Amino acid sequence: MAQKGDLMTARSDIRVLDATLRDGGLVNNFMFTDEFVNALYRANVKAGVDYMEFGYKASKELFDVSKFGKWKFCDEEAIRAIVGENNSDMKISIMADVGRCDFRKDIIDKKDSVIDMIRVATYVHQMPAAIEMIEYAKEKGYEVTCNIMAVSNAQESDINQALEMVGKSSADGIYIVDSYGALYPEQIRAISDKYMEVAEKYGKFIGMHAHNNQQLAFANTIEAAARGVSFLDATMMAMGRGAGNCAMELLLSFLKNPKYNVFPVLKFLQEHMLPLQAEGAVWGYDIPYLLTGRLNQHPSAAIDFSRAERTDYAEFYTDLLDK
Amino acid sequence: MAQKGDLMTARSDIRVLDATLRDGGLVNNFMFTDEFVNALYRANVKAGVDYMEFGYKASKELFDVSKFGKWKFCDEEAIRAIVGENNSDMKISIMADVGRCDFRKDIIDKKDSVIDMIRVATYVHQMPAAIEMIEYAKEKGYEVTCNIMAVSNAQESDINQALEMVGKSSADGIYIVDSYGALYPEQIRAISDKYMEVAEKYGKFIGMHAHNNQQLAFANTIEAAARGVSFLDATMMAMGRGAGNCAMELLLSFLKNPKYNVFPVLKFLQEHMLPLQAEGAVWGYDIPYLLTGRLNQHPSAAIDFSRAERTDYAEFYTDLLDK
Repeated sequence: MAQKGDLMTARSDIRVLDATLRDGGLVNNFMFTDEFVNALYRANVKAGVDYMEFGYKASKELFDVSKFGKWKFCDEEAIRAIVGENNSDMKISIMADVGRCDFRKDIIDKKDSVIDMIRVATYVHQMPAAIEMIEYAKEKGYEVTCNIMAVSNAQESDINQALEMVGKSSADGIYIVDSYGALYPEQIRAISDKYMEVAEKYGKFIGMHAHNNQQLAFANTIEAAARGVSFLDATMMAMGRGAGNCAMELLLSFLKNPKYNVFPVLKFLQEHMLPLQAEGAVWGYDIPYLLTGRLNQHPSAAIDFSRAERTDYAEFYTDLLDK
Repeated sequence: MAQKGDLMTARSDIRVLDATLRDGGLVNNFMFTDEFVNALYRANVKAGVDYMEFGYKASKELFDVSKFGKWKFCDEEAIRAIVGENNSDMKISIMADVGRCDFRKDIIDKKDSVIDMIRVATYVHQMPAAIEMIEYAKEKGYEVTCNIMAVSNAQESDINQALEMVGKSSADGIYIVDSYGALYPEQIRAISDKYMEVAEKYGKFIGMHAHNNQQLAFANTIEAAARGVSFLDATMMAMGRGAGNCAMELLLSFLKNPKYNVFPVLKFLQEHMLPLQAEGAVWGYDIPYLLTGRLNQHPSAAIDFSRAERTDYAEFYTDLLDK
């Protein structure tokens, strides 16, 4: 697949999606203040961000609402309390995990909702359930993506089959998700080419969601873009589970389209992200995440290691090697 | 230029150079304890690192020896106090800046020195002086490299001419140096191809020295390697001026040659780098460095901003735009 775009021009197909509340919510159990969410919404609109993801549509049967902030559930009224009718050029997305949501109950008709896009997150072995959700959300009138998680840990033949399944579905887009932050740019380019082939065959777009375990989230995001991937996930100050994501400030500094403006993002970082960190929210690149990323493992062991304030990296590495 | 190597095999031409004392010394004025330097030497040997750079050969006429640690000057005896006769497979390098060293006085015959390689650091406008130093050091019997700094800020035609000059010199290798951390992987690939052409024409090797302003130091280092660049600089926990460098722990985790071992590096980080940070040494990726990197400026303004413990990123950005 040929390179798409270059470092001097802007590509009109690029869409930036802010996933701060959704992936960042995994850091603090979605306990964001309304003031924070309000300011984030306004900063994103000013910065020219194309989509803002408010959180998950998680099942209230499976998860205790008293233990999480409201953005794990993303009730229609909660979003409207922030955005009103969302009279802006920015669209609103939420994520729904296969097997963790009551989509038939919680996903209402698009005409009654301020949500524009539903991203269905799935592991490769859950594809039939994902397709069911995709078709349901599509019928309700939403833009829909299929986010196939943990690709670094899936068999390539399974991924190929999954891509054919989504290709034939009504989904608008398919996301490359490097959940473990395990992939190098060279791999991302090859994976992007594979996904782009499906995109061109079936008329879908491809997105990239990166994790920063090996300090490659930004690099992998722009390398994917150079292969034609157009939906790019980022979060403020890279807030996200474990090592975090691709930083919005890096991505908007990189993109050449004059509609993007990093200035409101910088303001938001100093006024809202630094206080969040000062209050104790912890995320971002650190040695334990490098090690789980390198070993292509879920970051949970690294998260536990960090929470325990351990620094015996060598012993941790030995333990991981035994897993 | 074709890709060299792949993600499954090891390349025998790769050399890893630890620049912790040299670039990290710019953070703490080279005030490392002997215990730290001893432990670093031993960790590097155990980890299979190919070269360890002890610091600069700076002029004692130009710099007040009472204001810097000894690794700014790298006296022969200082190095020998750590390494003895250096009975290891690891080689020792020092850096000499054009215009900041008394090379005729301070660079002695190789037969009397435990140093193996001298890296001549130069800006592109100082090439004649660099060539003079290169030939001098080469005559004395050393391996010699020419490290052309701040390439992101130089005219391409000047770089081309400088490369021809070093090509025709006795230097063994030429380094790509992204002093400002301004370059994207796409640019690094093109620059690597250009340098590799000169390398093949004149029988030199090419090296990569990256800075982490945009969280691209590791990505740019491995992308350069994939284009044939073989000498790779890294530092422990990425310690280096401003945003720091490519992290040794990331690089050794990536390389496939079984001679490299990340375990002693992890031990060193927990036992020596964390205490160094706890004592107040500050380096590494942060928003102000992203902004100077993005604007292709020297990190000095960002270093001042950080030292002043300022967090008004937006105002800082506005100021930078005026420069």
